[in-house]
Amino acid sequence: MAKVGVVLSGCGVFDGAEIHESVITLLALDRAGAEVVMAAPDVELDVVDHLRGEPTGEKRNVLVESARIARGEIVALGQLAAADIDAVIFPGGFGAAKNLCDFASKGGEATANEEVATLLRDMHAAGNPIAAVCIAPAMVAAAIGKDLSPQLTIGNDEAAAGGIEALGGRHVNCPVKEFVLDEENRIVSTPAYMLGQNISEVAEGIEKAVAALLNMVEA
Amino acid sequence: MAKVGVVLSGCGVFDGAEIHESVITLLALDRAGAEVVMAAPDVELDVVDHLRGEPTGEKRNVLVESARIARGEIVALGQLAAADIDAVIFPGGFGAAKNLCDFASKGGEATANEEVATLLRDMHAAGNPIAAVCIAPAMVAAAIGKDLSPQLTIGNDEAAAGGIEALGGRHVNCPVKEFVLDEENRIVSTPAYMLGQNISEVAEGIEKAVAALLNMVEA
Repeated sequence: MAKVGVVLSGCGVFDGAEIHESVITLLALDRAGAEVVMAAPDVELDVVDHLRGEPTGEKRNVLVESARIARGEIVALGQLAAADIDAVIFPGGFGAAKNLCDFASKGGEATANEEVATLLRDMHAAGNPIAAVCIAPAMVAAAIGKDLSPQLTIGNDEAAAGGIEALGGRHVNCPVKEFVLDEENRIVSTPAYMLGQNISEVAEGIEKAVAALLNMVEA
Repeated sequence: MAKVGVVLSGCGVFDGAEIHESVITLLALDRAGAEVVMAAPDVELDVVDHLRGEPTGEKRNVLVESARIARGEIVALGQLAAADIDAVIFPGGFGAAKNLCDFASKGGEATANEEVATLLRDMHAAGNPIAAVCIAPAMVAAAIGKDLSPQLTIGNDEAAAGGIEALGGRHVNCPVKEFVLDEENRIVSTPAYMLGQNISEVAEGIEKAVAALLNMVEA
């Protein structure tokens, strides 16, 4: 049974992990028989009111809010070592671009949270596959783009794609129901809500990406 | 195309709507071609820290937090009329028992939030089907149990089942992957995380319940 890390960045599309993408990922992993370990960084986030779409000025903790999606079963990201898992997947949401790296504010000059960068470098060094959903591929580029020139997709958004290229990644356009596989670096990405107009097409892309990720664990 | 109301009660199993159940419901409805309208009451909730499982003493707004699951596309429950939808479904989570009624504190003497009770009475009067997931059937009993003696399930939890009976409902034990259908009252219920040990079996029960709900719309 593959053991897969799922790294969350809060709870809600505008300031944390995108909830639909996170749950669809968990369901696809469980249906495939994978064991899941959830993790999130123990850092603060800037709260956005999801009804009005506006910042509230309030702070919440990324790990504590991520625990809502995890039903309490989650560890601090610093406690998740590459040696403990066979693969890792990052759902999207603005949290991936704000709480796991600073891509949302710095674009092509972004850097990743140090725990995220360490995990990604260690996973790659161990030959363990990585998946990134929605905007999370920008975080992968911020962490390991300059070293590995990974092939990544966030769909077809020109600004985000340009940011990925500036960070050393090679962006590939991709429809929402499909995924991009960088076989050499063992990295899967899918656009999800960067492109998706409804939850069903987002689910189709994530389900295919999860299958491709697990296929690399077994290969 | 069936138009289905999804009534949320916050965002997180311990103080709001159960997130997995909510997303699985949304995905099942969308895959079946239904149009979804999300709603939640504009009332306060008592925050529970989902990492530690403890109350924080903080208040948040149920509608604003529910908007996280809805990606902002949600209305106040008072704006959702039975005449506007063909069916309604309530995901579970403690929010259904704390924010949509007071079953969590009052058990067999619970009453439902007035907007919830009005919607359920109006849906029943119009012959429109109702579905309730996890602990939400207790809320249905609190709202219309004495009038309609509905058949309901929350799985096999004796205390919750006893509360439903005290509220006038007729409780039926049910495994997590199945559902109970009260044909006369057009009410579907499924145990979900009241019994479920993993997200896949919860999904199987909800998918079947959603199919049964939509089947009644078409029948």
